[in-house]
Amino acid sequence: MNTAIVLSGGIGSRMGADQPKQYIMVRERPIISYCLEIFEKHEEIDHIVIVADEAWQAFIEEWLKKENITKFFGFASAGRTRQHSIYNGLKVSKGCTPDEGVVIIHDAARPLVSDQIISDCLHGAAEDGGAMPVITVKDTVYFSKDGASIDQLLDRSCLYAGQAPEAFRLGEYLAIHDAVSDEEIAATVGTSQIAYKHGMKVRLVKGSERNIKITTPEDLSTFETILSE
Amino acid sequence: MNTAIVLSGGIGSRMGADQPKQYIMVRERPIISYCLEIFEKHEEIDHIVIVADEAWQAFIEEWLKKENITKFFGFASAGRTRQHSIYNGLKVSKGCTPDEGVVIIHDAARPLVSDQIISDCLHGAAEDGGAMPVITVKDTVYFSKDGASIDQLLDRSCLYAGQAPEAFRLGEYLAIHDAVSDEEIAATVGTSQIAYKHGMKVRLVKGSERNIKITTPEDLSTFETILSE
Repeated sequence: MNTAIVLSGGIGSRMGADQPKQYIMVRERPIISYCLEIFEKHEEIDHIVIVADEAWQAFIEEWLKKENITKFFGFASAGRTRQHSIYNGLKVSKGCTPDEGVVIIHDAARPLVSDQIISDCLHGAAEDGGAMPVITVKDTVYFSKDGASIDQLLDRSCLYAGQAPEAFRLGEYLAIHDAVSDEEIAATVGTSQIAYKHGMKVRLVKGSERNIKITTPEDLSTFETILSE
Repeated sequence: MNTAIVLSGGIGSRMGADQPKQYIMVRERPIISYCLEIFEKHEEIDHIVIVADEAWQAFIEEWLKKENITKFFGFASAGRTRQHSIYNGLKVSKGCTPDEGVVIIHDAARPLVSDQIISDCLHGAAEDGGAMPVITVKDTVYFSKDGASIDQLLDRSCLYAGQAPEAFRLGEYLAIHDAVSDEEIAATVGTSQIAYKHGMKVRLVKGSERNIKITTPEDLSTFETILSE
């Protein structure tokens, strides 16, 4: 039993639009509906939990009907940080997912995730406890403490750029959130960070350059270009 | 007295084309000609040295004439690694640049460098010894020694993606190359790496998302899109 948790709590301030980016219409569908369709069709996903601000839940429900999303289990409230939203999503997922089941946590604004990435994450988490898709870092990355001059060139062969979705065995991952302080949840930057910090193994699986997160107008036009291919 | 060293020794194997990427024609001009024009027009640049394989030097000379590049000083031979090519370019630059002058080392395949970046690098190197443009890293970057599971999430606020051009006071930068072993030159990954490793300060200046390096067909179409804006 695997559950997709779709994070849709963002407010989209970087897009310069009024509405959160995941609700922008592309080809007459909100961006969030693209990943919902992918999870609906993926045969290893049993349920979908959506973390969203209450103000948007009626809008989402309308689209769940239009798109015939039958796996929807329920909403979780948006939290004050991304990791708080995840925690809320985990608690709701407990209602439909056993401890040994896997939750796969995705961004509503990543409409191009592939079935392969989802499967690899689910299998990786089932076997190792956690899994996340990564791509290689193309940049030459320097470390600078003060932002004024270089301290160190990092070894690119050890660097990986994290993507979503990230997958974890629900029982272990939720137990960490129950155990740590609210401040630690607030300070969590990467979804996997809190997992490996508390002893879970997080397997790296192959991500994709196409699996973009839409945060800027440029990303939006890239998405439209890829759709028209 | 400042000299631009344009690195054009690459063979372009990643493009899937027969010719090196910097010689691909875009709007009836080879990509290398775009940065040559920028250096020609930049009032703080006095000379241009081009590092290129001998087989391509006649082609480049033809374009130097067509584009009216009057600052061209001479060719340097392509080396067996990028840093060897730079070393060759430094030695040729010595013929037109005093020790306290600045060499600014650019990739022929970065046609969109701005006047501002060039000026900032020149001033930074004149004052601090070295300077390079950087942009912030947007990815969540994880460190993994074995490429199989995560060891550490890196603090994004200390990470910078290096771009070209990089600028150095010629005398100090060349002296390092004269002093170190051939193996150390071969093992150098970033142009600035050999500088700060041997005690030179390298100032970070503001790069630009537009200052792309053309290495893939996607980069080429991004360049064409930007040109048509």
